[in-house]
Amino acid sequence: MAARGRTETHLVTRVAVHGADVTAARRPDELVVEEPLTIQLDGVTVSTTMRTPGHDYELAVGFCHGDGLLAGAPVRSVRYCANGAASDSEWNVVTVDTGGTAPTPRPRLGNTTSSCGLCGNDAIDELCARLQPFAVDAPKPSVATMVAVAHSVLSGQGLFQATGAVHAAAAFDADGTVLLTREDVGRHNAVDKVVGRLLLDGRLPAHGLGLFVSGRASFEMVQKAWAGGFAALVAVSAPTALAMHTARRANLLLAGFVRGDQCNVYSPERL
Amino acid sequence: MAARGRTETHLVTRVAVHGADVTAARRPDELVVEEPLTIQLDGVTVSTTMRTPGHDYELAVGFCHGDGLLAGAPVRSVRYCANGAASDSEWNVVTVDTGGTAPTPRPRLGNTTSSCGLCGNDAIDELCARLQPFAVDAPKPSVATMVAVAHSVLSGQGLFQATGAVHAAAAFDADGTVLLTREDVGRHNAVDKVVGRLLLDGRLPAHGLGLFVSGRASFEMVQKAWAGGFAALVAVSAPTALAMHTARRANLLLAGFVRGDQCNVYSPERL
Repeated sequence: MAARGRTETHLVTRVAVHGADVTAARRPDELVVEEPLTIQLDGVTVSTTMRTPGHDYELAVGFCHGDGLLAGAPVRSVRYCANGAASDSEWNVVTVDTGGTAPTPRPRLGNTTSSCGLCGNDAIDELCARLQPFAVDAPKPSVATMVAVAHSVLSGQGLFQATGAVHAAAAFDADGTVLLTREDVGRHNAVDKVVGRLLLDGRLPAHGLGLFVSGRASFEMVQKAWAGGFAALVAVSAPTALAMHTARRANLLLAGFVRGDQCNVYSPERL
Repeated sequence: MAARGRTETHLVTRVAVHGADVTAARRPDELVVEEPLTIQLDGVTVSTTMRTPGHDYELAVGFCHGDGLLAGAPVRSVRYCANGAASDSEWNVVTVDTGGTAPTPRPRLGNTTSSCGLCGNDAIDELCARLQPFAVDAPKPSVATMVAVAHSVLSGQGLFQATGAVHAAAAFDADGTVLLTREDVGRHNAVDKVVGRLLLDGRLPAHGLGLFVSGRASFEMVQKAWAGGFAALVAVSAPTALAMHTARRANLLLAGFVRGDQCNVYSPERL
């Protein structure tokens, strides 16, 4: 696997404005690398995402899993398009191979039918058709554990401290032990990398585990957590209304707005 | 057009952790609405995005423009799928009609060719093939104006102050006057809504104007600014390396990390 840098350092201009007085100084700045990754499933391109290089196999597998494309099919191999004497671009295609046991991916875009699109409830219904809600009494990390994990992951976010331009995702257990952390310029990618690692290690579904995200909790974040079998999702920032409704349908513990020793619990409706 | 709410208020549980002592209280919380919007161009679905309802025509037009799908074709009409007695989902499809004068959209996903994907330089080259770099001496807002605009927009972000879950984008002129601001749960959507409004008003290309974004500056943000003809892009947070390289190729003024009265200028290489 190629050693791809995750940051680049460049001279930039630091500008300070004091009324009409503007001063400028040159200084080095570390920027996060962002490169396109094309993900293929059994020879069909299913996504191109802008990501930070590294953990690309995990990203590809996690994406396919979270989107329901694997449908339980085993991953036989994951590989780069690269053949050894590779140009940069050949490290930007990853193929997930199930030997054709996964359903043939359908293009999600194209000619329209008479259907008038989805609303949020339809989107939740689609998830319910392929994912089982968790049992109400399924084991979950406690809220106190979730708040502690949030602080622990944020303080250890190396790439963010260097560049200010990445999100983190992490898996943790009921004791508050962080099992793995991933950082990426795309917040969805960071989650896919965590889920993909667990899948490749044979650790999915992630029953009893929690998923941490350093940003907001959108619908897609809840979808990925639910598809991964996580019992809980904790977000540093706000959830959306649809994320809350989805978590309640899934019986997924959803916490957000972790600030100091406090947070909000959005799902279940009553603790 | 239906009056769709942009927020919902729900009772949530506020939890405070003090060592082994956990207290919980119920309180109302305002959450931003997130709903899927399917965008069609001349009857072909080109995207489904999770967005905050409102300014949907602008979003659809701005998306098609930024992605190069219009290729200069005039927009004849924009409309909802809804027919009046509409269910919620019918407000989640918007059709942009150019009377077939725009090129037929090609699905971006599907069976792969022998190509081994893109690298970042390829992505920039693709943009250069359809977008002209700006003249080096083209009029631009000053850095001092950009810093002032950032503070002005952030302090007026109503939906963010209510929900903590949205990004803002704004267009401003060389005097620092903010022409319009849009907020959305998706940061790309907020930019598309600004660009779409300017296009519908016949104000594109946005020569001499600046584009503000409340988050980071990714490659796609620079792409949208460049495609819209903006002379400058200012981001509250960090740019990625690819965003910087793209801005330098475009001769687009790129500033980031606005903090207090300071910011970093990433492009041009030397002020």
